[in-house]
Amino acid sequence: MNEKQSRYENDPIPATGAWQVGDAVGNRMFFEMEPKKVLALEGGGSLRGATVAYEAWGTLNAEASNAILLCHALTGDSHVIGSSGSGHPSEGWWEPLVGPGKTFDTDRFFIVCANVLGGCQGTTGPSSINPETDKPYGSAFPVVTIRDTVRSQALLADHLEIDKWLAVVGGSVGGMQVLEWALMFPQRVGAIATLASAYSASPLQIGWSQVGRLAIALDPKWRGGNYYHADDGDGPHQGLMLARRIAHLHYRSDASLSDKFARSWVDPLYLFEPWDRFQVESYLDYQGQKLARRFDANSYILLNKAMDLFDVTRGRGRLKMALQRIKCPTLVASITSDMLYPPRQQEELRDGLQEAGVDVSYHVIDSDHGHDAFLVEYEQVEAFLRPFIDKIS
Amino acid sequence: MNEKQSRYENDPIPATGAWQVGDAVGNRMFFEMEPKKVLALEGGGSLRGATVAYEAWGTLNAEASNAILLCHALTGDSHVIGSSGSGHPSEGWWEPLVGPGKTFDTDRFFIVCANVLGGCQGTTGPSSINPETDKPYGSAFPVVTIRDTVRSQALLADHLEIDKWLAVVGGSVGGMQVLEWALMFPQRVGAIATLASAYSASPLQIGWSQVGRLAIALDPKWRGGNYYHADDGDGPHQGLMLARRIAHLHYRSDASLSDKFARSWVDPLYLFEPWDRFQVESYLDYQGQKLARRFDANSYILLNKAMDLFDVTRGRGRLKMALQRIKCPTLVASITSDMLYPPRQQEELRDGLQEAGVDVSYHVIDSDHGHDAFLVEYEQVEAFLRPFIDKIS
Repeated sequence: MNEKQSRYENDPIPATGAWQVGDAVGNRMFFEMEPKKVLALEGGGSLRGATVAYEAWGTLNAEASNAILLCHALTGDSHVIGSSGSGHPSEGWWEPLVGPGKTFDTDRFFIVCANVLGGCQGTTGPSSINPETDKPYGSAFPVVTIRDTVRSQALLADHLEIDKWLAVVGGSVGGMQVLEWALMFPQRVGAIATLASAYSASPLQIGWSQVGRLAIALDPKWRGGNYYHADDGDGPHQGLMLARRIAHLHYRSDASLSDKFARSWVDPLYLFEPWDRFQVESYLDYQGQKLARRFDANSYILLNKAMDLFDVTRGRGRLKMALQRIKCPTLVASITSDMLYPPRQQEELRDGLQEAGVDVSYHVIDSDHGHDAFLVEYEQVEAFLRPFIDKIS
Repeated sequence: MNEKQSRYENDPIPATGAWQVGDAVGNRMFFEMEPKKVLALEGGGSLRGATVAYEAWGTLNAEASNAILLCHALTGDSHVIGSSGSGHPSEGWWEPLVGPGKTFDTDRFFIVCANVLGGCQGTTGPSSINPETDKPYGSAFPVVTIRDTVRSQALLADHLEIDKWLAVVGGSVGGMQVLEWALMFPQRVGAIATLASAYSASPLQIGWSQVGRLAIALDPKWRGGNYYHADDGDGPHQGLMLARRIAHLHYRSDASLSDKFARSWVDPLYLFEPWDRFQVESYLDYQGQKLARRFDANSYILLNKAMDLFDVTRGRGRLKMALQRIKCPTLVASITSDMLYPPRQQEELRDGLQEAGVDVSYHVIDSDHGHDAFLVEYEQVEAFLRPFIDKIS
């Protein structure tokens, strides 16, 4: 890893801007709403002529009854499986779970994943062209919520002529979308599974989210969000890198970082200068650079805000009353070492679902990998997801 | 809290620089080393004519056998008890434990606390005048380690004519100093107690420390560390505030923040603008401002580095061999909800001490307050510290 990592670090982030990654097409498909169609947003803003970029695998049957929606996490995208390439800066994030004969069996199911509203991988976001000005939205992009993203996905479902998903499944922020699907469109969802998520963002999550946003805002190259056509062609990479380092620490755990790095340092000859680095620091630098190459800082701010605003009870009364809207079998999963979405959050969700009379099953992923375990412990995830999907299909 | 907090937020941080707080005298005493005396540092640097600022309570007996050294945490200082005021920006951090009849009974003991090397409360640090240039050290200040601070405290002990401390006690980074006292000067220590600390900094701690340092470095007003006489008279307050917010999240816990703030927001009329804040965000802003008013950003970077470099095994062989140097009764305490120094670190220290044949007692503070619990749960701390101190005195 070190050699690869060193090469990466010597390779500057293109001054043209990592946000342009989203402009490449790759093998995504685009659902473009009518130019005059206005998408009204929960926070009061609106978007005109929005686009939803998505990928799909398998074949939709004649009754359109075999479709499963997967919802991606904060900086994830629609590329659930497949190698990286044009339009897909990262390899598939759930490779072992999707394909012929796998948990999400593409011989039986039609698997869809859509990029979230406000992101930077093809769905309308701050780096998209604002039809009012013919320039990127930048700071003019409105606040979006998880409910807005789910509404955009519902419009995509209409477009695909899918009245009802067999299941909606996702982890982390994806799990938030999953819950909102069942709450906003109970008739359109046959089952839901939410992993390492919550029914509302906690103060600790909001705090961590805030420091990430402030890290970007502290970078003078952020320019209040209007950096896409800055004279020097450069964006807030340093701020985004810092935000990612902060987040990555919360995605992992004491145990996983201790196992991986202990106290080894980058160069045994140097230790006592102020900026000499331990290996864990070099690793965080690398994680920061990797994100800065593929993600837009404005999207990062916006999606973190959407996460903070997530609360299934907003405008719906108390938790039990809100959750009573859910009419389908529900799976909730926790990760033992998750610092960001600790098990008490999923336990509260499970208890709330039970009180609301929802058919809920609860599973625990026993792992030292922290929050990221739902993207790592494939065997454990498969062990409960496969029977769940088999049962409801 | 909200009213006070709002007032605070409207009160700008003085452009003259929070680092000048350390120049006020208050009721500290100063041990000034000879101007020609060179303090050689572990990392290869050196300091000439350093000063150690300290406070003391009680009376040293004729045999100098009743002296106890308390070691402060990262951004703490010598002001263990007493109100805030000139030279003491914060109230005493262990008020309920020190005084007549208390655990650290000032009728019986002579209690000393010294500001650490590299800090900004009177002991030589980056904001001090460099005798080579007659200007503040700034970026010229050398890296210091916990061992360097302990060496400076040993020189203070010589100055006070204390050959042997009855006990050395501290939490967090203070607990690191405690351990180094027993390892570097086993004949000069009668007993030690280390709370919520470790025998070496973990990769997770190093990572969190790194992001704090980088937050300051990202602030253009940091100017590579040479901001003390900047033309605009302004320093990296924003960077330091961000670093403090990050740290404060790790000092607390999911449970304590959830209990305190839930999902309440600052202004019920505003929620959906990008920078509208939840109460937890306002609280973190306040914590950041509070630190920026009383602490120097260069010291923050430097002391975090010292913390990362802490490892009792450096140059001393394996853990058991290193810990065999300790010849005195030792107390180790954990906090159940500590994310920053999780109990596994104190358990490893305890086990290492037992293997090394050290007389060790182990205690657990049961608290939702996270790492800060050793500064909050006074009754639990007293319950094990008072018998420990009584027994060894």
